[in-house]
Amino acid sequence: MLHQERVDRVIKEMKREGLSQIIIADDPAVLWLTDRKSEPMERCGALLLKENGELHAFMNRLFCFEPMEGMVMHYYSDGENPYQLIAAELSPGKVGFDKNWASKHTISVLMEREDLIPVLGSDPVDICKSIKDEAEKEALRHAAEINDRAVAYGIQHIHPDLDEKTLSDMIEQFFEEQGATKDIQLQYVCYGKNAAEPHHGAVAGEKLQEGDAVLFDLWAPINNYWCDMTRTVFYKSCSEEHAKIYETVKAAQQAAIDSVHPGVKMCEVDAAARKVITDAGYGAYFITRTGHGAGMTVHEPPEASPSCELIAEPGMCFSIEPGIYIPRDVGVRIEDLVIVTEDGCEVLTKYPKDLQIVGND
Amino acid sequence: MLHQERVDRVIKEMKREGLSQIIIADDPAVLWLTDRKSEPMERCGALLLKENGELHAFMNRLFCFEPMEGMVMHYYSDGENPYQLIAAELSPGKVGFDKNWASKHTISVLMEREDLIPVLGSDPVDICKSIKDEAEKEALRHAAEINDRAVAYGIQHIHPDLDEKTLSDMIEQFFEEQGATKDIQLQYVCYGKNAAEPHHGAVAGEKLQEGDAVLFDLWAPINNYWCDMTRTVFYKSCSEEHAKIYETVKAAQQAAIDSVHPGVKMCEVDAAARKVITDAGYGAYFITRTGHGAGMTVHEPPEASPSCELIAEPGMCFSIEPGIYIPRDVGVRIEDLVIVTEDGCEVLTKYPKDLQIVGND
Repeated sequence: MLHQERVDRVIKEMKREGLSQIIIADDPAVLWLTDRKSEPMERCGALLLKENGELHAFMNRLFCFEPMEGMVMHYYSDGENPYQLIAAELSPGKVGFDKNWASKHTISVLMEREDLIPVLGSDPVDICKSIKDEAEKEALRHAAEINDRAVAYGIQHIHPDLDEKTLSDMIEQFFEEQGATKDIQLQYVCYGKNAAEPHHGAVAGEKLQEGDAVLFDLWAPINNYWCDMTRTVFYKSCSEEHAKIYETVKAAQQAAIDSVHPGVKMCEVDAAARKVITDAGYGAYFITRTGHGAGMTVHEPPEASPSCELIAEPGMCFSIEPGIYIPRDVGVRIEDLVIVTEDGCEVLTKYPKDLQIVGND
Repeated sequence: MLHQERVDRVIKEMKREGLSQIIIADDPAVLWLTDRKSEPMERCGALLLKENGELHAFMNRLFCFEPMEGMVMHYYSDGENPYQLIAAELSPGKVGFDKNWASKHTISVLMEREDLIPVLGSDPVDICKSIKDEAEKEALRHAAEINDRAVAYGIQHIHPDLDEKTLSDMIEQFFEEQGATKDIQLQYVCYGKNAAEPHHGAVAGEKLQEGDAVLFDLWAPINNYWCDMTRTVFYKSCSEEHAKIYETVKAAQQAAIDSVHPGVKMCEVDAAARKVITDAGYGAYFITRTGHGAGMTVHEPPEASPSCELIAEPGMCFSIEPGIYIPRDVGVRIEDLVIVTEDGCEVLTKYPKDLQIVGND
């Protein structure tokens, strides 16, 4: 079913940005607008939305994207050229292309017509999609609840016999049993110095040692909505320096949460966390942005970064995940998803954040 | 380590195609040229190759893509604009963009300069990459050997208590134990009428019944090279009609294998299989192409399809996988990977193809 009210919001945003026609191809964007997955894989599959309200779909017959009310369907088969079909519906001038559409598609459309000017075209959808409606908030809360349980499961199962990869696989299995779909990716389980790399996944053979940080960054799609959270605990002991790092990250994360309210710039949310870490002397070791939007994709606008001027609005959902990463020593990150409310934010993930030392029983 | 001989082959192909500068961004392409994964996810990470031999890399500092000899490194940090760096190195005129690079990157480069003309730029790499060298052939043979064992494992474990998904998960586990990396995707295990859908995966709760076809389409990356093969067997009994379908597919697959030699067009390989199936009266039920290239990606050029005019050359590796799909009844597919040799082809996967009825012991 076409979400006409979402289409209308996108058109309003298109007009605000001076875009008269945009191509929408990203699977989550198509799903958000139509309740249907196009998933054309390497083939061409896209929507074209015009400011006058016209909505076209260009789909390969193989993928069974059924007609729906409010949309003009254009089907093609393998061996036919879908770009001619798209080009025939475009008006001269600027075309906003989907940011994630493979370049072969965009260039093939451009090669059909010399009067088109390619520009970035995802903002109208991204901006509208970043503001969650009530059904979406419920889906995110449900996913976060499972995320809390997955973190609890991971922490309960910390054991010197389990390497990072084994524990990661166990958590993946747990997520699947809780209803996560097969799109689930590697769960980040990082021991000791491995936690100092923000994108370290989980490696077979990596064993746990006393004093290690154990970082869990767990994420999975539940009914098309992602959860994403991080907790860091310590195994058997925690040095004074590591405890100081932990408390700094915890305070930074809380400061960022406290900074969220409608009207705040996303860079100010980042700055709130960054100030606490910098004041504690660890500024050089906070090498990531503070957060990223989440919803039908796990990384989407708005991001909480030093350069993001977007303004928080009620209904936006994003992560707050400052960290301190000391190379070859330790990494600490704490991450929650939050939704902006009328006067602050709702923290979706509830697992406690007090410093926890495990493995001494 | 930079594979300079591969770079040189790509440059030769660029000249043949009249491309003086190309952007290479697809992870497997970067890996094939540099032995290193860039994997910048949503960020910008790319190589620029010019016909004069200049090779530039543009990488985010986050992803630890180390400098290497023969390559000019350009690093950027979050908050900096990598497209300015790329644009500064481009000559005016045609730029061949990577087919799989997200459009936001291509458009952002184009917006930095008005004198660039975007064209499709992946063919030089794709064509050279489709011709495997000796080390790559060895890697593919090794992966195929594991694939044979995975199929044998699957067939041995057919049991009425196991639904499709459970058996699929067991095979995935088997692959992981044999060294497949985490990129492994859902293994296709299809019972009965589910095998009639060429892209049916494996579903929990789907139970086996006497007379069912059991189709295994198993694929995984081993040391960065993919294996991919399909075998179909029958459970407890096989009707006369299903046996006829099986023998037709087997003959078609053999005909396609026999048709492969240097100089044959890929569409002729497709036609060889299609003729056997059409002559047997099942032409309308062979609804896919005959095969696809395989290597560092599981679907890559050349494809064996009715429209592919590419000419087979020694070293090319692709699948041969005709099938007959009777809706709501049965599907049979047999698939091997082959490598083109000087006078024919080498079939990498060896698991027998005679009609097999299992479950009667």
